[in-house]
Amino acid sequence: MEVVSKNKVAGGFLYKVKIGSAPSLGGLSSTANVYVPPAALGGGHKVPAVVFLAGLTCTEDNAAQKGGFFNAAARTSLALIFPDTSPRGAGITGESDAWDFGVGAGFYLNATKEPFAQFYNMENFVTKDLLEAIAATPLFNAIDTSKLSVTGHSMGGHGALTLYLKHPSIFRAASAFAPICNPTQCPWGVKAFSGYLSGGVEEGKAHDATELISKVEKTRRINILVDSGLDDAFHLQKQLLPENFEKASRAAGFGVDQVQVNLREGYDHSYYFVSSFAEAHIDWHAKRLL
Amino acid sequence: MEVVSKNKVAGGFLYKVKIGSAPSLGGLSSTANVYVPPAALGGGHKVPAVVFLAGLTCTEDNAAQKGGFFNAAARTSLALIFPDTSPRGAGITGESDAWDFGVGAGFYLNATKEPFAQFYNMENFVTKDLLEAIAATPLFNAIDTSKLSVTGHSMGGHGALTLYLKHPSIFRAASAFAPICNPTQCPWGVKAFSGYLSGGVEEGKAHDATELISKVEKTRRINILVDSGLDDAFHLQKQLLPENFEKASRAAGFGVDQVQVNLREGYDHSYYFVSSFAEAHIDWHAKRLL
Repeated sequence: MEVVSKNKVAGGFLYKVKIGSAPSLGGLSSTANVYVPPAALGGGHKVPAVVFLAGLTCTEDNAAQKGGFFNAAARTSLALIFPDTSPRGAGITGESDAWDFGVGAGFYLNATKEPFAQFYNMENFVTKDLLEAIAATPLFNAIDTSKLSVTGHSMGGHGALTLYLKHPSIFRAASAFAPICNPTQCPWGVKAFSGYLSGGVEEGKAHDATELISKVEKTRRINILVDSGLDDAFHLQKQLLPENFEKASRAAGFGVDQVQVNLREGYDHSYYFVSSFAEAHIDWHAKRLL
Repeated sequence: MEVVSKNKVAGGFLYKVKIGSAPSLGGLSSTANVYVPPAALGGGHKVPAVVFLAGLTCTEDNAAQKGGFFNAAARTSLALIFPDTSPRGAGITGESDAWDFGVGAGFYLNATKEPFAQFYNMENFVTKDLLEAIAATPLFNAIDTSKLSVTGHSMGGHGALTLYLKHPSIFRAASAFAPICNPTQCPWGVKAFSGYLSGGVEEGKAHDATELISKVEKTRRINILVDSGLDDAFHLQKQLLPENFEKASRAAGFGVDQVQVNLREGYDHSYYFVSSFAEAHIDWHAKRLL
């Protein structure tokens, strides 16, 4: 792992790092932003971390620059990890032709359909390669990768919910801003699953938060927070379907103490919405990680 | 004034507006962002406003998207006004050739040298056209344009300090993030004043915060806050010169109670720096406006 740049923010440091030759990405490199809060600087005590997964067309920079997470993370002594949204440079024909599939649109799953299966394994990248690289880097010694939670926006909200539900040994909680909640039932998800998965949309059920919450062990304590805007154009287009996720959660026996879904009047899909609730989400994660 | 878009943020609304045919800009139109905090919505009570002036290459969007000002503005019931950094579309030969002169680099002065004098009058635009347009727009009825202060970043910090010092009847206070403090003594300022002013750098003294603070009425109560990073590449290149401004302020008899200059270890010139101190600046403005 190589440090590309470093910015002081909210008393801590944001490092942009390059992870060389990631196995999950077919050996491609990837960049990420890693925030170390002030309490963890200079051999300070170990701190938990929240992984932020970005949405369609985004990179590791969007939430770092526009999300408004750092002051709250500094105050609560949480590290933040921002990965990229897909492999870059695979060279697959047409992978950059659409804004909602391919480059910038990895959907945080492991592809099973060629030619994507060799490179598009963002689920493994986020849960293995990235975390191992951070754990192996002395600069990030103070980040306790055994105390993690995950959040994200839009496609990254889908990633947060599904990775949390699939990997209880890695993530203790998940929050999401305007997440794609039921991708087997919306155009974005159908396109992604049809393209990345040899079993298509049917196989995609294993990467659908609404399907997953219905099948989760009833004895598992669930920690999920969702905020989504009612004036979000993608909500109105039925791309997000938070109502389906909430209904499935209740049907599965999870109350608001375990799955909280807030539909916010007047808010849209932008980072203006994300930044409005960023502090509340960080505080929510802090309560579950500290 | 025409509303181009509207985003809910921190409980209030951010409006992008187009000001048609601004006299100070030779009749060109200009766009701005105007934030109305929750307390001022729906015929709420009148609120003061802080004008944010952006830096070189920026537009009305940079600080709105990356500055992290809205949650604090909502909490303190302050409106925020973000103008653009120059006229656009004047069509002057070469006006877009450099990143530090011409388009995106208006320096918040009134040009006296042709061909710029017809269009590049951002000082008049900010202090007259923009404020008059806001005052005349029913949507912004709740913004009290008789209670204003000004802030800004880099070139916009220069703008904030100089417009405050030159227009005490308009602005009650000024804060600045990494401002250009002594432009007659730095390459950016020399280039700008040589290009915009018929009297060149000598005329530029009238638009130089370090010169202005030396000449301000001793009886005037001054309210200035400056934060600037010590690892800022432009500070190290002597483009900003906050030390000159602080020295001139003290020599003019203004103590830290009137001119506070904080040099911040480890911080750079980016919006990561701005967002780290955004809340503190908003709170500082609120104390002086409410």
